[in-house]
Amino acid sequence: MLNHFFSVKDCPDTMGWIYEALKLKNNPYEYKGLGINKTLGLIFFNASLRTRLSTIKAAQNLGMETITFDVNKDGWQLETTHGGVMDGNHVEHIREAAAVMGGYCDILGVRAFPTFLSKREDYLEKYLRGFQEYAGVPIVNLESATLHPLQSFADLMTIEQHKKKKRPKVVMSWAPHIKALPQAVPNSFSQWMQYYDADFHIVHPKGMELDTKFTKNAKLSHNQDNAFKEADFIYVKNWSSYHNYGDIQKNRKEWMITLEKLQSTAQAKLMHCLPVRRNVVIADNAMDSQHSIIHDQAYNRVFATQLVLKKMLVS
Amino acid sequence: MLNHFFSVKDCPDTMGWIYEALKLKNNPYEYKGLGINKTLGLIFFNASLRTRLSTIKAAQNLGMETITFDVNKDGWQLETTHGGVMDGNHVEHIREAAAVMGGYCDILGVRAFPTFLSKREDYLEKYLRGFQEYAGVPIVNLESATLHPLQSFADLMTIEQHKKKKRPKVVMSWAPHIKALPQAVPNSFSQWMQYYDADFHIVHPKGMELDTKFTKNAKLSHNQDNAFKEADFIYVKNWSSYHNYGDIQKNRKEWMITLEKLQSTAQAKLMHCLPVRRNVVIADNAMDSQHSIIHDQAYNRVFATQLVLKKMLVS
Amino acid sequence: MLNHFFSVKDCPDTMGWIYEALKLKNNPYEYKGLGINKTLGLIFFNASLRTRLSTIKAAQNLGMETITFDVNKDGWQLETTHGGVMDGNHVEHIREAAAVMGGYCDILGVRAFPTFLSKREDYLEKYLRGFQEYAGVPIVNLESATLHPLQSFADLMTIEQHKKKKRPKVVMSWAPHIKALPQAVPNSFSQWMQYYDADFHIVHPKGMELDTKFTKNAKLSHNQDNAFKEADFIYVKNWSSYHNYGDIQKNRKEWMITLEKLQSTAQAKLMHCLPVRRNVVIADNAMDSQHSIIHDQAYNRVFATQLVLKKMLVS
Repeated sequence: MLNHFFSVKDCPDTMGWIYEALKLKNNPYEYKGLGINKTLGLIFFNASLRTRLSTIKAAQNLGMETITFDVNKDGWQLETTHGGVMDGNHVEHIREAAAVMGGYCDILGVRAFPTFLSKREDYLEKYLRGFQEYAGVPIVNLESATLHPLQSFADLMTIEQHKKKKRPKVVMSWAPHIKALPQAVPNSFSQWMQYYDADFHIVHPKGMELDTKFTKNAKLSHNQDNAFKEADFIYVKNWSSYHNYGDIQKNRKEWMITLEKLQSTAQAKLMHCLPVRRNVVIADNAMDSQHSIIHDQAYNRVFATQLVLKKMLVS
Repeated sequence: MLNHFFSVKDCPDTMGWIYEALKLKNNPYEYKGLGINKTLGLIFFNASLRTRLSTIKAAQNLGMETITFDVNKDGWQLETTHGGVMDGNHVEHIREAAAVMGGYCDILGVRAFPTFLSKREDYLEKYLRGFQEYAGVPIVNLESATLHPLQSFADLMTIEQHKKKKRPKVVMSWAPHIKALPQAVPNSFSQWMQYYDADFHIVHPKGMELDTKFTKNAKLSHNQDNAFKEADFIYVKNWSSYHNYGDIQKNRKEWMITLEKLQSTAQAKLMHCLPVRRNVVIADNAMDSQHSIIHDQAYNRVFATQLVLKKMLVS
Repeated sequence: MLNHFFSVKDCPDTMGWIYEALKLKNNPYEYKGLGINKTLGLIFFNASLRTRLSTIKAAQNLGMETITFDVNKDGWQLETTHGGVMDGNHVEHIREAAAVMGGYCDILGVRAFPTFLSKREDYLEKYLRGFQEYAGVPIVNLESATLHPLQSFADLMTIEQHKKKKRPKVVMSWAPHIKALPQAVPNSFSQWMQYYDADFHIVHPKGMELDTKFTKNAKLSHNQDNAFKEADFIYVKNWSSYHNYGDIQKNRKEWMITLEKLQSTAQAKLMHCLPVRRNVVIADNAMDSQHSIIHDQAYNRVFATQLVLKKMLVS
């Protein structure tokens, strides 16, 4: 039985899970009895489209009930620090809120983005860790300040489905954006790729290095053209700076992904976790080309999540 | 099998559907097995009370799961134009959002009101058409910029239930309002009435003509007193001007519906789609009179929607 | 069959219900067939965490479907006064809204807090009474302007579970807060305690007297130290002034509950309905002590609600 699902480190057998999730995809309702009388609570501190819908669908496929709770809209702000006098905007402490929601639900999924006010605070993951500590039930990471493991799991499923050689070249490329985005998706993808047999490269402008705790032995470079050569998969993602925390490096339009760039690869498949700003991050001609397997990635989210829930339900 | 339900034109047999929906009303759970393992996604760009609740109830009656998604609150703004650089407020393109949601759900219902910024834009129905084009699953119109077919279908069911003669006189009367309301309900009702055996009149102040694409051969006039004579059904609705787009014609209090006006009819039944502003659109003494069949209209929404979903589920 | 559940007066047998709810807790799914094809609508005019989640869970345990509706966010503002011209911010009258929602649902739960604009208006309970009058189905009070009976019912279950003597001393103590809170919880707890065998005390600063309609023969005093002596249960709660309506009496820090204060009791159990502001209302050292049965209170909310719904479903 799986306790928490916070990162790839909670997955004891990456390849086994990938195969098992792809099997679920072929027969989504096989375990519909497993979730009977079980409730999944979905706790959102931030907006969500794919995660919200795919997680509900995954739970429904297993016969679970779901309760969705948007903390800041349906409820009130939660305090995460300890020992303070709560005479400000925070109406309830995460200790109580997590314990109560854990009492009502069998599993809780939690989404809590970084605030970009403090790198140290963000990387402490106080919301996810607070739920893990106080809820008393398994916690699923629905994208935390630093990681998005359900996305990465679905990404690896998608690569496994589309790969044409045993050890593909996978390049994660930084791309421009107009806002400071979290490092959660690239951190998480880098971490999962350590458990997958591939020639894994990361290419980005200087200054956009990720935390080496996540990238480890990935091949880092700064020239997109060179990195794309012979690539089988191009995973496109913007992230803001980790070292100059939250900086977005404006005027980097030349890093946008275009069809022309993809044509210099080994007919690479184009990946992105969505949402994507067209003609900012990826050009229309690449998005709408045969290279894209972006919809497959999104669709696989259902079965990645379903497998994680299944592992939690099996006692 | 029904593909999309955008307007009355997607209904091949209006009277057959009316009878079938009235049959469902007598036995709402007869087809509860039909929706097993099927998910209805409800996508709201705008507020909703009746549509939200009646559609969820309709899906539950068929055994379907539902997922409700309020685009602008739970997610983010969607882009509908093509080829632009998405460096503004729109975080995701409808192409991706629709495709992803269509991947997770078996049927999608979409509500998207007009913006009144441009008649041309509103009448292009870019949200509904975008979902039809990109979602890959059947789309139900939960009130679009120009049409509200589930309302009209329920309206015709209600007339059919209450009519006392084979070919009743049905008068749709404009009434005052304080805000610019869409033309969706009167457009749609006019369009459905072309497939129903009735003496159909529309009465409104000069300048409040609807698009003749929808009103076609309806009898148009500008004198409410005359129009109400011998009427069997009075359908009350405000709409803003189509030609002087969005104009509301203030100071038209004399068009408000009162009990006195109903007494000059052939004991007409009073109809309104709700919400209604009392003593602005309809006076209390009419609302609370025996003339009103307004609650029946709202209640029939469940079964109109249930029939549309049933048609989509049957393969 | 239970019609409405507005206050303890709708409960014909308090002790019987407590025992029955505790039995449900031991076997939550025993009546799962009872709610088949039944829908519970949850109507929120205000934020909610415990009530929202525990009520959904209670309905799921009985096999009911649920539809959650946040009036001011998903819909629009409702009018409750009669005879007025609705040309302001209120889009729909509660008469229509309640009737329509009652048509779609078999039971409605309604939460509507006081506005503190007028004591008279708040104590008229226009939202709850409006739904009772116009919905045509049983209405459950999910916390109204003046009462929170599901909380009190769960509180009595919790006392019954933890009491060590036949007739425990139960002290409801006022505690400080930074905002004007409703009197609903203390009113309701006082009212339920009249039907429970206990030595019931209420202690609060002068000026914080509750409406005697609810407190009746409870023992009132103003010295917390004296009141806590030999206490078996300390129920902590802030409320704003009833007589000087909405006043909060600032600078009453000495009324905060601490571990030291609990140590002068008969090893009293500490209770609070949550959410609680730590170190404002109750100090960390009390919250995190062995005295607290606060999580049990929250957890019992599921089964108190489940019993009320069960009584409404049984015909």
